[in-house]
Amino acid sequence: MAGSYDRALTVFSPDGHLFQVDYALEAVRKGSCAVGVRGADVVVLGVEKKSVLKLQDERTVKKICMLDEHVCLAFAGLSADARVLINKARIECQSHRLTVEDSVSIEYITRYIAGVQQKYTQSGGVRPFGISTLIMGFDSDKVPKLYQTDPSGVYSAWKANSIGRSSKTVREFLEKNYKEDMDKAESIKLAIRSLLEVVQTGAKNIEIAIMGSDSVIQRLELAEIEAVVAEIEAENEKEKEKSKSSNSQQ
Amino acid sequence: MAGSYDRALTVFSPDGHLFQVDYALEAVRKGSCAVGVRGADVVVLGVEKKSVLKLQDERTVKKICMLDEHVCLAFAGLSADARVLINKARIECQSHRLTVEDSVSIEYITRYIAGVQQKYTQSGGVRPFGISTLIMGFDSDKVPKLYQTDPSGVYSAWKANSIGRSSKTVREFLEKNYKEDMDKAESIKLAIRSLLEVVQTGAKNIEIAIMGSDSVIQRLELAEIEAVVAEIEAENEKEKEKSKSSNSQQ
Amino acid sequence: MAGSYDRALTVFSPDGHLFQVDYALEAVRKGSCAVGVRGADVVVLGVEKKSVLKLQDERTVKKICMLDEHVCLAFAGLSADARVLINKARIECQSHRLTVEDSVSIEYITRYIAGVQQKYTQSGGVRPFGISTLIMGFDSDKVPKLYQTDPSGVYSAWKANSIGRSSKTVREFLEKNYKEDMDKAESIKLAIRSLLEVVQTGAKNIEIAIMGSDSVIQRLELAEIEAVVAEIEAENEKEKEKSKSSNSQQ
Amino acid sequence: MAGSYDRALTVFSPDGHLFQVDYALEAVRKGSCAVGVRGADVVVLGVEKKSVLKLQDERTVKKICMLDEHVCLAFAGLSADARVLINKARIECQSHRLTVEDSVSIEYITRYIAGVQQKYTQSGGVRPFGISTLIMGFDSDKVPKLYQTDPSGVYSAWKANSIGRSSKTVREFLEKNYKEDMDKAESIKLAIRSLLEVVQTGAKNIEIAIMGSDSVIQRLELAEIEAVVAEIEAENEKEKEKSKSSNSQQ
Amino acid sequence: MAGSYDRALTVFSPDGHLFQVDYALEAVRKGSCAVGVRGADVVVLGVEKKSVLKLQDERTVKKICMLDEHVCLAFAGLSADARVLINKARIECQSHRLTVEDSVSIEYITRYIAGVQQKYTQSGGVRPFGISTLIMGFDSDKVPKLYQTDPSGVYSAWKANSIGRSSKTVREFLEKNYKEDMDKAESIKLAIRSLLEVVQTGAKNIEIAIMGSDSVIQRLELAEIEAVVAEIEAENEKEKEKSKSSNSQQ
Amino acid sequence: MAGSYDRALTVFSPDGHLFQVDYALEAVRKGSCAVGVRGADVVVLGVEKKSVLKLQDERTVKKICMLDEHVCLAFAGLSADARVLINKARIECQSHRLTVEDSVSIEYITRYIAGVQQKYTQSGGVRPFGISTLIMGFDSDKVPKLYQTDPSGVYSAWKANSIGRSSKTVREFLEKNYKEDMDKAESIKLAIRSLLEVVQTGAKNIEIAIMGSDSVIQRLELAEIEAVVAEIEAENEKEKEKSKSSNSQQ
Amino acid sequence: MAGSYDRALTVFSPDGHLFQVDYALEAVRKGSCAVGVRGADVVVLGVEKKSVLKLQDERTVKKICMLDEHVCLAFAGLSADARVLINKARIECQSHRLTVEDSVSIEYITRYIAGVQQKYTQSGGVRPFGISTLIMGFDSDKVPKLYQTDPSGVYSAWKANSIGRSSKTVREFLEKNYKEDMDKAESIKLAIRSLLEVVQTGAKNIEIAIMGSDSVIQRLELAEIEAVVAEIEAENEKEKEKSKSSNSQQ
Repeated sequence: MAGSYDRALTVFSPDGHLFQVDYALEAVRKGSCAVGVRGADVVVLGVEKKSVLKLQDERTVKKICMLDEHVCLAFAGLSADARVLINKARIECQSHRLTVEDSVSIEYITRYIAGVQQKYTQSGGVRPFGISTLIMGFDSDKVPKLYQTDPSGVYSAWKANSIGRSSKTVREFLEKNYKEDMDKAESIKLAIRSLLEVVQTGAKNIEIAIMGSDSVIQRLELAEIEAVVAEIEAENEKEKEKSKSSNSQQ
Repeated sequence: MAGSYDRALTVFSPDGHLFQVDYALEAVRKGSCAVGVRGADVVVLGVEKKSVLKLQDERTVKKICMLDEHVCLAFAGLSADARVLINKARIECQSHRLTVEDSVSIEYITRYIAGVQQKYTQSGGVRPFGISTLIMGFDSDKVPKLYQTDPSGVYSAWKANSIGRSSKTVREFLEKNYKEDMDKAESIKLAIRSLLEVVQTGAKNIEIAIMGSDSVIQRLELAEIEAVVAEIEAENEKEKEKSKSSNSQQ
Repeated sequence: MAGSYDRALTVFSPDGHLFQVDYALEAVRKGSCAVGVRGADVVVLGVEKKSVLKLQDERTVKKICMLDEHVCLAFAGLSADARVLINKARIECQSHRLTVEDSVSIEYITRYIAGVQQKYTQSGGVRPFGISTLIMGFDSDKVPKLYQTDPSGVYSAWKANSIGRSSKTVREFLEKNYKEDMDKAESIKLAIRSLLEVVQTGAKNIEIAIMGSDSVIQRLELAEIEAVVAEIEAENEKEKEKSKSSNSQQ
Repeated sequence: MAGSYDRALTVFSPDGHLFQVDYALEAVRKGSCAVGVRGADVVVLGVEKKSVLKLQDERTVKKICMLDEHVCLAFAGLSADARVLINKARIECQSHRLTVEDSVSIEYITRYIAGVQQKYTQSGGVRPFGISTLIMGFDSDKVPKLYQTDPSGVYSAWKANSIGRSSKTVREFLEKNYKEDMDKAESIKLAIRSLLEVVQTGAKNIEIAIMGSDSVIQRLELAEIEAVVAEIEAENEKEKEKSKSSNSQQ
Repeated sequence: MAGSYDRALTVFSPDGHLFQVDYALEAVRKGSCAVGVRGADVVVLGVEKKSVLKLQDERTVKKICMLDEHVCLAFAGLSADARVLINKARIECQSHRLTVEDSVSIEYITRYIAGVQQKYTQSGGVRPFGISTLIMGFDSDKVPKLYQTDPSGVYSAWKANSIGRSSKTVREFLEKNYKEDMDKAESIKLAIRSLLEVVQTGAKNIEIAIMGSDSVIQRLELAEIEAVVAEIEAENEKEKEKSKSSNSQQ
Repeated sequence: MAGSYDRALTVFSPDGHLFQVDYALEAVRKGSCAVGVRGADVVVLGVEKKSVLKLQDERTVKKICMLDEHVCLAFAGLSADARVLINKARIECQSHRLTVEDSVSIEYITRYIAGVQQKYTQSGGVRPFGISTLIMGFDSDKVPKLYQTDPSGVYSAWKANSIGRSSKTVREFLEKNYKEDMDKAESIKLAIRSLLEVVQTGAKNIEIAIMGSDSVIQRLELAEIEAVVAEIEAENEKEKEKSKSSNSQQ
Repeated sequence: MAGSYDRALTVFSPDGHLFQVDYALEAVRKGSCAVGVRGADVVVLGVEKKSVLKLQDERTVKKICMLDEHVCLAFAGLSADARVLINKARIECQSHRLTVEDSVSIEYITRYIAGVQQKYTQSGGVRPFGISTLIMGFDSDKVPKLYQTDPSGVYSAWKANSIGRSSKTVREFLEKNYKEDMDKAESIKLAIRSLLEVVQTGAKNIEIAIMGSDSVIQRLELAEIEAVVAEIEAENEKEKEKSKSSNSQQ
């Protein structure tokens, strides 16, 4: 039945679906996982790094990119599509600076990105972008911001969220473990813990970027991530023993 | 049989239907419910808020938006589509102010929005907008106005109406309970009561915006909505007991 | 067999039909009924009003619209399509006034409307308009004019005619009951009587507009229509009794 | 087999046909019949008038139109299409007058009309015109001219010819009965007699236009046509009796 | 199998064919026959005239047209298409005169016509021209020229050739009977004799145009053609008798 | 299976093929054979001449064309396509002369031709060119150049090569018989011998063009070709006898 | 199932794939193999040369091309497509020099090439490029750079990588044998050894280009490659004997 609708880009199915958008979401679901966590005065983006082949430079496989000095984006899905969208967003940031003589607000650039994504779902001759994004940053109000957009052009703000592979599992983990007003260390730990739900291979496949209220981006070194992972594993171990001993007590 | 017509955007079926418009209406029917109620000197818009995920900011999920200082729009359907239509309407409002040196009338902007929706049903290369809208506001005549538009580009004025999920049930409820010349409190209560017909989860999933003849928008706080919901439940309880006792009397 | 032709807008079928035009006519046939009656020095347009929902404002559901001070149009079919065509016609009327410094003749604007409708049947990328129209008015010759157009772009002049739902029945009724040189009251009564052939619910679902040789439009109040309906029913009653008694005499 | 070719406008079938042109000719064959007869110093166009509905004005159903003061066109097929083609031809006539300071020759405007018809058979995105035409007039050489065009864009000159419904029967009748150098009365009679081959309902469904070498168009009144019809019937009666008596003599 | 390729204009089939061009050639093969014969200082074009209907003017059915004072073209296939191509060629001739201040060479205009035909086989949105042409004329070198073009855009020079209905039979006849350095009378006779191979109805369906080294076109009168036909028939008769007597001698 | 891909011009098949290019190559393989041979200070192009019909001028059927004074091209495939490509190349040669004030290098014009061919395989709305080419010439370095291009837009340089009908057989023959540093006579003989592998009808169906380091083109007369053919046949005869006698000796 | 998606260029399949990109990758996999190896202060590109036909010039079959003085590209896939992409890249390099007055960085030009490739996967009317590329060079930091792009528009940096035929096997070989900080000789040997995994025919089908930190390109002569191949074979022989003797020892 679907066969009849998926050829034309901008057509509704009888039950009111836009199939192409659904299929693009499927491309996102095949992409590597990304999480965002908003703390008290910090935002953290974490992504699962593609299992880099042995001889590949990690440098070019970044899935966390700066849009402007104070805005940072992580994506899940087709990376070539992401590059196009990121370029458009960067140009918008620069152009905003020039015309308004002020940097973009995080919501402004999110709305811009979502708007571009929507346009590719309603016009003929193009396909939707095969990516979802997480956008973090600080406006002049020094409040941490975290947004998410998807191929349909919908966007929304989050305390913590996840996109890409197994994002549902990760989101459920975040819901169980998110606490209000976490400090920087807690925020980082939560981001890493949630990624470890899908990343079996540990620290070396995790990339973390942090932004504080000074709008300065900080990327964690492998060693730093390994330290957090070790800490988490120790806690998990303790947890297990505790639950074991409590089980044996029962 | 339908399979033959739904691929081309702008084509009639043998029985005179435009399938794409019907399918877009299906997308509206899957959207969250919205109601509008016109009182004596007040208009109220109420929407069912999507069951926001635990970590999602409610702020970005608004389904009631200002078009101009004195015009307010609620929608049901694809929110990315809505954003595009709302942007177009806002620009028209500003451009009208600049060229005519007067703000738009509520019917003018409604006709404009419906016109954009119609255009997307008659030209090739685009699909209809997947949204219906409720538009409220006051013109200089200080008379409350409430309009509705749908994906076909039809618009009409209402005392009270509903769009989106279960809108038929809600409209029937409104028809039974609407009274002429309701004051502000009665209007708000009717809007909330009608939404409670489809919203099982009570006050926290309801959003209410009110406009008085001063054209100032007022959004109800959760506590205020909860108070009204409590009041309604108390009345319902009383009602039930009354009907029970009258039943037992029989 | 039809399946092969209805996808392309501007293509003939082997037996010389333009299917899309036929299908648009089907949309007209589903629209509410409209009649036009030309009297001695008066023209009357009457339309069946959509069974307005209880809370709907009647004001926005008008199916009789002014094109210019001296031209009036009723339509049957898709009302969003009608709005587009009416807008185009109004602009043509204004533009004609500006360039020729005279108002359009009724035939001129009819030919213009039919021309727009034809264009949408011969070019690619658009669909035909899903409406038929009745156009009435007076030129400077003070002779009443009544024209009809349909989705194919054909137009013709009539003493009395009907479009939309059950238009065939109504036209036959008009043919049986039309008299030359009717005065204003007779013309109105004929319009209402013919509409009552399809409108079961009486005066409240009927809208009547009258234009005299002074080119001033007059819309009947509900009470006025009810009076005429009552008068008609009384006559019908008398008629029936007469025929009954004549039957019993046989 | 046809199914494969009729969707694309400008494509040959394996046996070298342009199906869309054939289908447009089918639309012509469904149109009302028209005849043209060239006399010694007169040309006559006659058309079968559509069985006008009882309340319809005959005025707007004319199938014989002036292109310029000295050129007259009758058509068979889709009348909305004809109006477009006639408008184009009229504009060409005016434009020719302005630029060349002379009126068009009958062949020039025929070639122009046939050229427009051809263009609609070779380009994408449009369909052929669903009409054939008969064009009559006088150039400065005072010689009567009669041309015919069809949807393929072919044109040719004729002493007498017929298009539309049953045109083959009528053409055969013309071939049998055409005489060189007929005077005005004979030419009119031949046109009417040939039309009576397909028009069963007599004078009231026949429209006749005559042009003499003074290039002045003359349209026959109903009474005049009735007179000719009566004369023809009388002759036919005489003929029959003669043949009957000659039969009985055998 | 063909069904898959004939819808798109500009596509190769797996065996390297352009079907649309083949189908256009089929339209040519259905057209009336045309021959060209090059003598010592003369070129002759002959065409089979369509069996003109009894009342049709022969004047408009010419299949031999002047492109410029010194160039003449005969065609086989769709005559409406031919008119378009001939118009384009005539404009090119005039434009060449204006810009180069010299008339076109016969090969130049042939190449131009073939180029237009090729373009319609390689671009989208148009179909090939459904005609083949024979082009004759004299350049300043006073040498007779005869070219042929076909729907694919190929052109070539010939001593004598044939296009259209039964062109293969006619070409074989020409091959058997062509002699070098024929004078004008011989050339005309060969053209007519070859046409008589397919034209059963004799002189009245044959059209002959001759160009001498003075580049003046001469069209034969019916009587002149009849004289040649009579002469040919006499010879044939003699031939037959001779072969009969020789047969009987055997 | 192929059926799904051959309608859209610019689409890959699942196994990475561009079918339209393969099909165009099939058109080339149906074209007449062409060979190119590079000697020490000479290049030779030879083509199989289409079996010219008896009355056809050989002059217009040339398959070896000059692009500029020092560049010469032979092609196999659709000759109407070739003309378009040759025209484009000639214009590029002239334009290069005007802007760079120097003639094109052989590789430059080859790359240009191949580039045009590639463009027609990647854009929509056009089909690939149905020809392969052999391009020969001398640059200022006085070194003979021989290039080949095909419908995909690939080009390469050769000592000797063949395109068109039976090109594989001819190429194998060339591979067996090519010797480095052949003089003019040897080069011509090799070109003719290789063509005789596919051309059964001898000298009269062979066309030979030679370019020496003075960049002057020389076309062989039939007599000259016949002389070479006779020489070759004599040698072959000798060869056969030798091999026969050696066979009989065994 | 695939059949439904592969006709439209820019459409997702239900499982989130872009089939055209997958098919273009298939074209790459059919192309000849290319490897890149980054040493301590050197980069080496090696390609399998197509088995050049006996008479073909090797000169035009280069698969390693300079983009600018300091950037070098090898590709696998359709060579006509590659030429287009290489031309675009070369123009970008020149244009960058002119506007920024500095040469492009290796990553900049890689991103540019990948961007062009992405654009051809998201717009209608074009197909993806059927090539992958390896790009090597030195920026002003004197650090060797090696990038890879593919038809989807993804790019990444590598220590060593392989594209085209059997690239998976070759990449695995590289992973096993790559050592950090190899000198020039070791880097060349590794490139050649890895190519020998797929190239059975030895040195003559291998092409090697080397760039040192002076950004000067050096292409190895056949003799130089043969020397390395001999060395490798000697080592392999030794290796085998060693493993044999160790096997026999077991």
